[in-house]
Amino acid sequence: MAKRQMKLGMFMRAPGHHIAAWRLPEAPRAAGSSLAHNVEVAQLAERGLFDMVFWADTAGVWAGDKDELSRLCRVAWIEPFTLLAAFAAVTKHIGLVCTQSTTYDEPFHIARRFASLDAMSGGRAGWNLVTSAQAAEALNFSREAHMDKSDRYRRAREFAHVVLGLWRSWDDDAFVEDKAEGLFFEPSKLHELNHVGEFFKVRGPLNVPRSPQGHPVMVQAGASDDGRNLAAETAEVIFAATPTIELGRAFYKDVKSRVAQFGRHPDHVKIMPGVLAFVGRTDAEARAKHDRLQSLIHPQVGVRQLSNYIAYDLSKFPVDGPLPPIPKTAVSNSRVDLLVEMARRDNLTIRQLYEKIAGGRGHFTLIGSPQSVADTLQEWFETGAADGFNYLPPTAPGSLQDFIDLVIPELQKRGLFRTAYEGTTLRENLGLPIPPDNSSRTTSSGTEVRAAGFTST
Amino acid sequence: MAKRQMKLGMFMRAPGHHIAAWRLPEAPRAAGSSLAHNVEVAQLAERGLFDMVFWADTAGVWAGDKDELSRLCRVAWIEPFTLLAAFAAVTKHIGLVCTQSTTYDEPFHIARRFASLDAMSGGRAGWNLVTSAQAAEALNFSREAHMDKSDRYRRAREFAHVVLGLWRSWDDDAFVEDKAEGLFFEPSKLHELNHVGEFFKVRGPLNVPRSPQGHPVMVQAGASDDGRNLAAETAEVIFAATPTIELGRAFYKDVKSRVAQFGRHPDHVKIMPGVLAFVGRTDAEARAKHDRLQSLIHPQVGVRQLSNYIAYDLSKFPVDGPLPPIPKTAVSNSRVDLLVEMARRDNLTIRQLYEKIAGGRGHFTLIGSPQSVADTLQEWFETGAADGFNYLPPTAPGSLQDFIDLVIPELQKRGLFRTAYEGTTLRENLGLPIPPDNSSRTTSSGTEVRAAGFTST
Repeated sequence: MAKRQMKLGMFMRAPGHHIAAWRLPEAPRAAGSSLAHNVEVAQLAERGLFDMVFWADTAGVWAGDKDELSRLCRVAWIEPFTLLAAFAAVTKHIGLVCTQSTTYDEPFHIARRFASLDAMSGGRAGWNLVTSAQAAEALNFSREAHMDKSDRYRRAREFAHVVLGLWRSWDDDAFVEDKAEGLFFEPSKLHELNHVGEFFKVRGPLNVPRSPQGHPVMVQAGASDDGRNLAAETAEVIFAATPTIELGRAFYKDVKSRVAQFGRHPDHVKIMPGVLAFVGRTDAEARAKHDRLQSLIHPQVGVRQLSNYIAYDLSKFPVDGPLPPIPKTAVSNSRVDLLVEMARRDNLTIRQLYEKIAGGRGHFTLIGSPQSVADTLQEWFETGAADGFNYLPPTAPGSLQDFIDLVIPELQKRGLFRTAYEGTTLRENLGLPIPPDNSSRTTSSGTEVRAAGFTST
Repeated sequence: MAKRQMKLGMFMRAPGHHIAAWRLPEAPRAAGSSLAHNVEVAQLAERGLFDMVFWADTAGVWAGDKDELSRLCRVAWIEPFTLLAAFAAVTKHIGLVCTQSTTYDEPFHIARRFASLDAMSGGRAGWNLVTSAQAAEALNFSREAHMDKSDRYRRAREFAHVVLGLWRSWDDDAFVEDKAEGLFFEPSKLHELNHVGEFFKVRGPLNVPRSPQGHPVMVQAGASDDGRNLAAETAEVIFAATPTIELGRAFYKDVKSRVAQFGRHPDHVKIMPGVLAFVGRTDAEARAKHDRLQSLIHPQVGVRQLSNYIAYDLSKFPVDGPLPPIPKTAVSNSRVDLLVEMARRDNLTIRQLYEKIAGGRGHFTLIGSPQSVADTLQEWFETGAADGFNYLPPTAPGSLQDFIDLVIPELQKRGLFRTAYEGTTLRENLGLPIPPDNSSRTTSSGTEVRAAGFTST
């Protein structure tokens, strides 16, 4: 049996994930709205043999005040799905994954769009299913207030069920295209969905054929109890945000066990923590790259990002003073607790603390030589904390080029990463099974939402 | 002053508009879901100097019975916007226009998507605003029944207002990207919309910057009284479906006068009737191409298309018998009346009648040599029936190649069509003004929906 190898995603953000990346003299201007810049980065990731590029998303601008907002470059950018569709025409192997929210959209639209991308790219699409976390989005969709979390998750689960059902509208061999007889498809191989549920009533069928990988890969990133259950039931790739190996292992173990409880094979769900890495030929060179970016963080931006992260406004406190007492809030979680504990333990100032999260927004962060970065990734991979990683380049294309030139060869040398794409579809590269079409659904494998509560044919 | 020239759209449909095009031995298989086929056609249109490619759309499969449906190739295809986004990466000049319906979608989503395509393509996007005409779509969007026409049009008008408003979220020079100061945009150049209306409440701002052409070109195709008014108020390009020059002139005159009533310049709305053309080096060669396709129409398909067109089921009548009496229905219109009159006058059988519409679905149809086709287009263009045409190739790429090789040079020789693109944006090529951003809106030019009934800042 071939040695188990890491899967790698490339988490795109223009011009990089570090909050000050755009301020570097070499950073491209208008990167977020430039097709050329984004294609360059995606093609680079493909040369690096990444499994997929990934885009996060939000359908709104951060509802801070305009003065604070004006110091951020993450305010206007090309909608990620639109960009992925363009990538389909200028890449050949890499997977194309982005976020679209279930909260303010329709399952027919989302099923259709991702199936189209999947057909168009020869089976390279993935959908990162989320519920909208930003309350401000509601105000762009004729709602007085944000949908509450429990409703969002019930809606998301039913939404996934409908999308998966629509993706089985046509059997794999439905389109006979018999020109002589004038028969385009075999009528018995077309299926209406006729879904009726709490949130949706969708007849179908979908007007897009299946792709060589059956349907798009289902991706999720939920960390809460609701989020983990939905992911365990429906996801095939999970992007985790676990800042330490201990939290990584705990998340991995918990989610894999939930997957099994839903009757699914744990290997059919790939857990990929986000990792931000500054890499240099030596540890010192990596550190210098890191420090250069940190020095460009505007304090107003740093304090606002930290305030949002811990859900407590720090703008009234001296930036070089200690962290004030933080009241326990409802949104407190293990990542935030960890950060606040660190500040107390190491007597960090507000500035020192915001510098800790300015690059990766709380994602696991590495700074070092190719060997030291590979050592850590290997440890996570081999001790039950990860099936692979979702790489966040602090700058792009710069840090991505470093990772490809320095870390990928080291991983390949160790037999931990591919030296050529295994197949032509995202599923083949990830080692995921092709979900059966309606004609062969005698067993309940795959990512179907099987629990009761919906009726459909 | 330069001579007035025709504008040309290329109305895409894979593998061509004729209902039997897919049955030709040379037709590509799986054309509707093939990126390669569609890119080939779009790039060919660009070599022919067309202003734009255009895609129609519907979010559902025709609700006929499966047996009838199975003889049609228009049942599963790549969602058009997704395809246009891919075209942005592999074309340089041609405009990218498709339909998205206002009936079962959100203005924020549509504004964002088309602004993204516009930014990504350097100002080549256009949105064909429609209301969903197919009742079956409702069943895919959790509705018991289709929204009634008057509601659909009121919603569409407000929808257009919101989209246009969101497209003015950022002033053209908002993004200063001052790296030294750490200022990404000028706060006074960001505008919230704060729209409140009958159907929508949308705060904004949009999270996409403006493009080199300001915002996407607004396109419409409405023929009813409501449709003409909405187009006169908000459209910059109108795709007409006028099967005779008399109907073409009447439509042109009526719509241009409505445009003026809305206080807009008639030259800022380009009226482009659809035209299906079979072209050969001689009239006989063109006729042979036409007859070859007509012979491939399956009678069941021909009768169904005719029944749908006239809104009366003909499937129970002999296909080689006369047209039975057709009851006057609510959906009767001038195109249908014309067809029925023709059948009576010329004693046409049902088969002969369905052959009349099998290619262009009632669009104006030409069969002939390059000179005769150019003569007719010139007459329409010079006698107040058209500002240009939306060309429907019966087969693609075949008929499009014929049009480019034979008709375009003839039009160029007559000075009626460009020999090189005038500019880099769709607006420059169409001769449309760039709409002002919020900073310069002292006059009410452009395509703003100005009438009362909405509040927004």
